[in-house]
Amino acid sequence: MNPATTALRSPEEARALFRSGTSGPTAGWAAGHTQANLIAVPADWAYDMLLFCQRNPKPCPVLDVTDTGSWTTPLAPGADLRTDLPCYRVWEDGELADEPTDVVGRWRDDLVSFLIGCSFTFEWALTESGVPMRHVEQGRNVSMYVTTRPCRPAGRLHGPMVVSMRHVPPEHLSAAIRETSLLPAVHGGPVHCGEPDGLGIDDLARPDFGDPVTAEPGDIPVFWACGVTPQAAVMASRPPFAITHAPGQMFITDARDEQYRVA
Amino acid sequence: MNPATTALRSPEEARALFRSGTSGPTAGWAAGHTQANLIAVPADWAYDMLLFCQRNPKPCPVLDVTDTGSWTTPLAPGADLRTDLPCYRVWEDGELADEPTDVVGRWRDDLVSFLIGCSFTFEWALTESGVPMRHVEQGRNVSMYVTTRPCRPAGRLHGPMVVSMRHVPPEHLSAAIRETSLLPAVHGGPVHCGEPDGLGIDDLARPDFGDPVTAEPGDIPVFWACGVTPQAAVMASRPPFAITHAPGQMFITDARDEQYRVA
Repeated sequence: MNPATTALRSPEEARALFRSGTSGPTAGWAAGHTQANLIAVPADWAYDMLLFCQRNPKPCPVLDVTDTGSWTTPLAPGADLRTDLPCYRVWEDGELADEPTDVVGRWRDDLVSFLIGCSFTFEWALTESGVPMRHVEQGRNVSMYVTTRPCRPAGRLHGPMVVSMRHVPPEHLSAAIRETSLLPAVHGGPVHCGEPDGLGIDDLARPDFGDPVTAEPGDIPVFWACGVTPQAAVMASRPPFAITHAPGQMFITDARDEQYRVA
Repeated sequence: MNPATTALRSPEEARALFRSGTSGPTAGWAAGHTQANLIAVPADWAYDMLLFCQRNPKPCPVLDVTDTGSWTTPLAPGADLRTDLPCYRVWEDGELADEPTDVVGRWRDDLVSFLIGCSFTFEWALTESGVPMRHVEQGRNVSMYVTTRPCRPAGRLHGPMVVSMRHVPPEHLSAAIRETSLLPAVHGGPVHCGEPDGLGIDDLARPDFGDPVTAEPGDIPVFWACGVTPQAAVMASRPPFAITHAPGQMFITDARDEQYRVA
């Protein structure tokens, strides 16, 4: 897709495209509109998941929780959470079972859906502050890594924190930290800058999710807590069933990024 | 108590005093340390309560949730949530049943405790910015009011938003809004300034909780979402059992207000 075109799509147009089968990373889509991670678990697991999010607010900032069985959200009236994301993952006992473009046939009446803030939201603020988005320029999905930093467990749920990484030129580091710190509902400021060893990441060129992204000379790798963290918790904790978005292929809401800005 | 003395108490000293029977409002105690509202409900109601908080983050910003039956929190290692608050309220079927200074005899193994951000936390930031705290100067509890603004329901829980009010001189209004907006984990910026009618409050001199506080000429009443809101939800929704703090008589944690500041 042409970045200039996708940026101008309205959230509704984007969702309609995804509903009709378009898939791919949503970074750069629907400028200024809030994107969200999806994780749906059986009601029996909903308290553990909500508590896990509360205890790990940097990777899991909750934007909305649906009523049991519902596929609608006030963040995007008219949207259907079963069809309006580009690509899904279906998990059985913590194993990836399927990666379909809709989950109408896999939906269950006992599912509770969590919409969790996504760092794609703050990319517009970064872009407007002059911070280059290497992965968008290179037409790639953002790089994501499983770290050695454990989340605080909640009931039956536990797992490591996942981070997204962006290569930031040193002269833009201050703006990158300032702008994202003002958006705590979408992961807030970075959890780490520089040396990936500090997070137990061996090789930036081999992300666990998404694509490798090429750095420019002098770029500093900057790491933000990532909404794929609940998927890592699913893999580690093995609930009997879960549905998530595919990494980087988010739910685009009607909410405006500005709404989540603190000051 | 002498305000200068109580401000200098450490959180641990304050809790020890309350454990040994001292009671009274905690505004102005343990300068710079985060105070919290308490609401404990049976595990069967914990998901509804956590979801209620998630859906109403201005009045109900969650700082910690205990494991079921536990009376400890990482926010204050060594503290006992059953004894270390100045005064409690015990609720049966939504009715106030008792107001004891400890709840050791009323504790249940199935209780889940929620610690919710308190506006007393941001009073230090306001004081340091030169905003006078009329209720502290007058030795009174802050004024709190039940509004006509409904919270977003969650499962079986519903109820109106409760607000705390401070009289702010017009020349300090900007600082009051700026400083509190940077503390979203403790209610953030005001929900309303000026005319109390906008919140359905008839008479500022007759608060629903706390004490009336005298304004100085020109003062503007400024309203912040208040952590007594879960108590109003208990009154409206009638869970079989709940334990809360008494309004204005908070749990003083070891956490530092600065930790909750966004930027």
